Amino acid sequence: MSDPRMIAREARARYDAFKKAPVSLDITRGKPSAEQLDLSNELLAILKPSDFRAADGTDCRNYGGLEGLPEMRALFGAIFEVPAAQVVVGDNASLTLMYETLALAMAHGVPGGAGAWSAQKPRFLCPSPGYDRHFAICEDLGIEMILVPYKGRDPDMEMVERLVKSDPRIKGMWLVPKYNNPTGTTLSDECVRALAKMECAAPDFRIIWDNAYVVHHLSETPDALLSGYAAGVEASQADRFVLYSSFSKVTLAGAGVSAMAGSKANMDWLLLHRSKATIGPDKVNQLRHVRFLKDLNGVTAHMRKHAAILKPKFEMVERILKREIGDTGLATWTKPNGGYFVSLDTKPGQAARVCKMAAEAGLKLTPAGSAFPYRKDPQDQNIRIAPSFPPLAELEKAMEILSVAVLCSAEA
Amino acid sequence: MSDPRMIAREARARYDAFKKAPVSLDITRGKPSAEQLDLSNELLAILKPSDFRAADGTDCRNYGGLEGLPEMRALFGAIFEVPAAQVVVGDNASLTLMYETLALAMAHGVPGGAGAWSAQKPRFLCPSPGYDRHFAICEDLGIEMILVPYKGRDPDMEMVERLVKSDPRIKGMWLVPKYNNPTGTTLSDECVRALAKMECAAPDFRIIWDNAYVVHHLSETPDALLSGYAAGVEASQADRFVLYSSFSKVTLAGAGVSAMAGSKANMDWLLLHRSKATIGPDKVNQLRHVRFLKDLNGVTAHMRKHAAILKPKFEMVERILKREIGDTGLATWTKPNGGYFVSLDTKPGQAARVCKMAAEAGLKLTPAGSAFPYRKDPQDQNIRIAPSFPPLAELEKAMEILSVAVLCSAEA
Repeated sequence: MSDPRMIAREARARYDAFKKAPVSLDITRGKPSAEQLDLSNELLAILKPSDFRAADGTDCRNYGGLEGLPEMRALFGAIFEVPAAQVVVGDNASLTLMYETLALAMAHGVPGGAGAWSAQKPRFLCPSPGYDRHFAICEDLGIEMILVPYKGRDPDMEMVERLVKSDPRIKGMWLVPKYNNPTGTTLSDECVRALAKMECAAPDFRIIWDNAYVVHHLSETPDALLSGYAAGVEASQADRFVLYSSFSKVTLAGAGVSAMAGSKANMDWLLLHRSKATIGPDKVNQLRHVRFLKDLNGVTAHMRKHAAILKPKFEMVERILKREIGDTGLATWTKPNGGYFVSLDTKPGQAARVCKMAAEAGLKLTPAGSAFPYRKDPQDQNIRIAPSFPPLAELEKAMEILSVAVLCSAEA
Repeated sequence: MSDPRMIAREARARYDAFKKAPVSLDITRGKPSAEQLDLSNELLAILKPSDFRAADGTDCRNYGGLEGLPEMRALFGAIFEVPAAQVVVGDNASLTLMYETLALAMAHGVPGGAGAWSAQKPRFLCPSPGYDRHFAICEDLGIEMILVPYKGRDPDMEMVERLVKSDPRIKGMWLVPKYNNPTGTTLSDECVRALAKMECAAPDFRIIWDNAYVVHHLSETPDALLSGYAAGVEASQADRFVLYSSFSKVTLAGAGVSAMAGSKANMDWLLLHRSKATIGPDKVNQLRHVRFLKDLNGVTAHMRKHAAILKPKFEMVERILKREIGDTGLATWTKPNGGYFVSLDTKPGQAARVCKMAAEAGLKLTPAGSAFPYRKDPQDQNIRIAPSFPPLAELEKAMEILSVAVLCSAEA
């Protein structure tokens, strides 16, 4: 079976069979499954009609409370490892907080800078493969993106350090520091310290520290991540790291609670502008979450239930890829300890073709290139697998189709 | 009692007595009272753990649904008098949708225009007295404000028409068309038609039609408002009117649902950028609102309960002002048919002094000038009264203090 011609011929026959009985499968997005959402159904009905007061007596039904409820700030503070006073609670999407941060930076500039970024032709470093929605924000706002490849679990730090030192137009950098989307890797302590210490030509350089998967472990021996904010403080760069996270993949994907945190200067700046744009976040939904999750222990316990549902899906991905592709050398893939994705690399130049073949057999994949700035994978080899949403049986079928499409490249 | 000296002397004595026993009252913001919020307590607990599907089967718990649930779009469509397909549902604040609209216009421009407003030194017409938070958005975004006075229920349309015809930098105009904040007036049909037809030097002129009080009547013979959007369509200016409203003062002020509506071009433009900034609005909260309010009849019935609570407060304001100030000529005030405010005009040059005196006796009023661009009332005579929040007894005391502070100006 190691003869490329034979592999390709057999794969082609199997692919043609799939195509004759096309399925309708979708593993494009990191959506929680219905079974996972069911874990939080209690949240929907957790408030009684008389239960609307926060611990400090705040009537959560009325206007106000721009920073968020004290107990919700405390909970996110524990997650972020920062004081509650440095947390600002948002609504259902940390993506919105990130968009808001960069839109405000474009329009007004950030503390420590020289005014509106829009007048400074800003650039952002984009470690890739990365999160497609991050890159879409840059594109929407007109922030030029510079691809930085990963070298193992960390971005190519030699390249990062060289670029930020020499180019004052480089205003910041995207990072999913833990269980990166889509590679599943967590930054090394050395990398976090280097990010904090590195010399930046832009005095207002910002790292958008999207800790989306901070509590989203798949194993009982989770990855450890050094606190970027603490490293920044130690390096006298308290403003450099701006932290984001949410309960979207803890409770309800579309009805969770998000938050951001960082230095007082950064939070004051954000609140100043937020105060013009909102009458305050939805405190009632914050109260629901406090009642449901209680504290960090509650979050941890709840996340174990998610892991119990997700783990068999990640194991299924691993099993099928190993069985079908194995050591043919036609693809490598990640085996993450947490998060929502498996990242698969085909031979260079094959990813778009594999996605197209899969689509023709009824399997939708995140479009090839999505995990790169401007949706262009320079090697055309990366495919993001999102195993969370489909039931196991469908996922198995999806992985078989994907594998066979990969195997068809044996002769390429 | 018509001798100014006697009025002033007696008022001064009463004021000194108030000051000796200072109260702590606040009628600064148009916040619903706890009693009003109680009307929607059922909403807090309306969903069962198994109730998370919209009429079309959508799982409201998960990501997606950028435009909003079909049934929520239909309900707002009925309120806006536009097809549901032209409604986009937001989260808890229409203010955020307005800020978003203008922030996007600044960064990208709007359909029909020549790119980013930020490069065109944009100006906005601000009929005043108007809503302070509108003006704060302009200030935050760097949009220059031009004050247009009201002439009765309508802005000075001669001035409006002259300005928009001659100045291409005038990109738009704020309006609360019904029960204006703070004057309580509703635009005449002639005014709405004139707004739709008027010739604008800016091809991308936009009217931010903040219909915040569209269903917020205080009487059984509510004001009638011509549809701005329909008038725009008739005048071949479908893009001119962008409509906003919310359920913030229908259900829960901090946990309602907002929406905007308008031409397909405007909505497509908004959704294009929104798709980069959010994973969708909170559909679960939309579902709660659909279950609770049901349809336009449900909204109307619910608003009658609000009116029953609010009406005695507005009557109290009227009664005390009439009793204390009456026909002294020291102030005039509005008697609105709906909305949240009474607008009081002192003699020119007295508003700031009255607010200061009230504050020293323990009554917080919206700072004088708040209802004008840059917080500057050119006549220094307007004071906004927000009677909704305090209980009746406190409101009575507040109105007495305010009246006495006004009467102290008799000799000025």
